[in-house]
Amino acid sequence: MMKKAKPREVFMGRLSRGDDLLEEMSNMCLRENIQLGWIEALGAVKRARLAFYNQETHAYEFFAIDRSLEITKLVGNVSLKDGHPFIHAHITLADRAGNAYGGHLAPGTVVFACEFRLEVFDGPGIKREFDEATGLPLWKLDE
Amino acid sequence: MMKKAKPREVFMGRLSRGDDLLEEMSNMCLRENIQLGWIEALGAVKRARLAFYNQETHAYEFFAIDRSLEITKLVGNVSLKDGHPFIHAHITLADRAGNAYGGHLAPGTVVFACEFRLEVFDGPGIKREFDEATGLPLWKLDE
Amino acid sequence: MMKKAKPREVFMGRLSRGDDLLEEMSNMCLRENIQLGWIEALGAVKRARLAFYNQETHAYEFFAIDRSLEITKLVGNVSLKDGHPFIHAHITLADRAGNAYGGHLAPGTVVFACEFRLEVFDGPGIKREFDEATGLPLWKLDE
Repeated sequence: MMKKAKPREVFMGRLSRGDDLLEEMSNMCLRENIQLGWIEALGAVKRARLAFYNQETHAYEFFAIDRSLEITKLVGNVSLKDGHPFIHAHITLADRAGNAYGGHLAPGTVVFACEFRLEVFDGPGIKREFDEATGLPLWKLDE
Repeated sequence: MMKKAKPREVFMGRLSRGDDLLEEMSNMCLRENIQLGWIEALGAVKRARLAFYNQETHAYEFFAIDRSLEITKLVGNVSLKDGHPFIHAHITLADRAGNAYGGHLAPGTVVFACEFRLEVFDGPGIKREFDEATGLPLWKLDE
Repeated sequence: MMKKAKPREVFMGRLSRGDDLLEEMSNMCLRENIQLGWIEALGAVKRARLAFYNQETHAYEFFAIDRSLEITKLVGNVSLKDGHPFIHAHITLADRAGNAYGGHLAPGTVVFACEFRLEVFDGPGIKREFDEATGLPLWKLDE
């Protein structure tokens, strides 16, 4: 299931030290009214709050890593949930020993530095709709 | 060694629960006759089958992670091998404790949910050709 | 803080066995005079030299992983530092057991194989400027 997405513009930017990583990206998308997008980033965080989706119970399990980490990769997309721009992002991190961690990005992850590429597509955005089988709000697309 | 690739279109899409991740991406590329492309994705898998390329013996060593994991990142490309669209992808995963794993994506990795951005370039595609030094089918490009 | 970046061209290419990963990407950007860009890659290295930025002391702590590893993901950008094209890249790696590692890419990481997508934007490039709060050369962008 996929649809052609017409690229409209690309933004290069950065977040500021102390920003909540997910919240600030969300604000950015709300301000620019981005309905469909793709975001990639690298940088570092002061601490991370992540989640793992339990495929049996259909609930996110949240956990924190309370120390400074490199962002070796953030990838996410922007689409519409309940009519509003919504970011779904996953992040890969590494500590000072080089060990890597990752998961679903949750609120509470604090930026130390972050450089991103945000690609915006012409609307209308893809809508998320509750999917019974997974318990997740998945993209509604024609087969 | 590199060549200019002319972007033709971008697809945004998702795979379905139960799909074989590599096989379904490959089918997608065959159906659309994509000869040159770049794919990025995030999501979750029910289990993973990965490979590590042994640089001494020139053989892939396959291994499985038989539990549910987040896909913190999938990155891959589409080019031509033996005249057919061929996907080469690497994947980074994370478990419920946040520990990260990764490797060369092999058949047998089962999708729980997966959202992707597939960028397609005008053909002709880059061809893979056996490289003696690495034992790998590498891109044939002019110096 | 972000700015619109006008895509000019996309290169697909590969590096050669034995190349210094960071140095060769830098040479590529200097040769093509790329002032603003985004790079993504996958592949394998013979050994890695990474760094972790200490957010307290404002110094990079370098470390090496002296064995062959898969590159499950490289992400980086090209901008201007002291008037010259400069690459900032982070890398995620995995060993033969599938365990993942990562960090800031440092010189001394040796390529076994590497396939990349390099997106180039019209200039002028974004300039890096010393940031007191983080001790890092960050992008200078209007609020």
